[in-house]
Amino acid sequence: MTKAPTKRFDVIFQGHGRASGKMRNDISVNWPMMKESFDLATDEGPFHGGDGTAPPPLALFTAALTGCIMTQIRAFAKRLSISIDRLEVHAKMHWQGEQTGNDPYVTAPVGFSLDIDIDSGATEDELRHLLDCARKGCFIEQSLAQGVVVEHRLKTGNTWLTI
Amino acid sequence: MTKAPTKRFDVIFQGHGRASGKMRNDISVNWPMMKESFDLATDEGPFHGGDGTAPPPLALFTAALTGCIMTQIRAFAKRLSISIDRLEVHAKMHWQGEQTGNDPYVTAPVGFSLDIDIDSGATEDELRHLLDCARKGCFIEQSLAQGVVVEHRLKTGNTWLTI
Repeated sequence: MTKAPTKRFDVIFQGHGRASGKMRNDISVNWPMMKESFDLATDEGPFHGGDGTAPPPLALFTAALTGCIMTQIRAFAKRLSISIDRLEVHAKMHWQGEQTGNDPYVTAPVGFSLDIDIDSGATEDELRHLLDCARKGCFIEQSLAQGVVVEHRLKTGNTWLTI
Repeated sequence: MTKAPTKRFDVIFQGHGRASGKMRNDISVNWPMMKESFDLATDEGPFHGGDGTAPPPLALFTAALTGCIMTQIRAFAKRLSISIDRLEVHAKMHWQGEQTGNDPYVTAPVGFSLDIDIDSGATEDELRHLLDCARKGCFIEQSLAQGVVVEHRLKTGNTWLTI
């Protein structure tokens, strides 16, 4: 029997954000491979100096991680021939900030949790395997688990500086 | 002169996702401290078995990271008395997947970059300091930089199992 070949594929998303309102950002997100684009926005409420015209970035992040694991649970359930009757996920994202006086504050993650509630005729072992696959296949969870140093460049005048 | 006191504060977001359409997830995000909630959704296009009724999770993630750094650049510019005339950010998120045959694939981050384009009368040193503060104050970038193991529980019947 021939072993199935292993292939690698790239997934690249691009964003272009423009500061618009007081704290609002309009962000055009492109997925070039799929020729798809999405107009998204973030804002802050009046307490943080914004107009509340869009969700804050951390709300998008919470939905992104929750939606990513849910998407992979359903995508991989099909491949593993597991039928799912109902799927709900409760997410909790916890960060802490530390601030001296009115200085810019410094942030750190405290802990994130995803509670997965599935109705399925599958066995516990099958569901554990499905969840294990979904975790490994969740682009966002793997980015958090493996860690990523975000690279920055800063444009001053016509020059891009690496930070 | 008395040194300004250092204080810590918690930021907690909660999400409740429900699988609705073929690949659509409706996610209600709550920010209890601010008594704010946001109705968000993710979907996939037809190529991935969805109906394209909402952006995919990775588009929300791209907008979340882009919006987070932009928000902190503007919030901290005020505190540092730096005036910003225009702010645009170009983001690139690059992941790779590895798949054997039709098995569930395994993902990993390759690299994320944020190119910051600012019009400001501030000096290069002031802008470098502002960007350094924004990086440390960006909840999402710090989660990626420091790494987070996401905890999972799985509900089977009436029992929550720790995974």
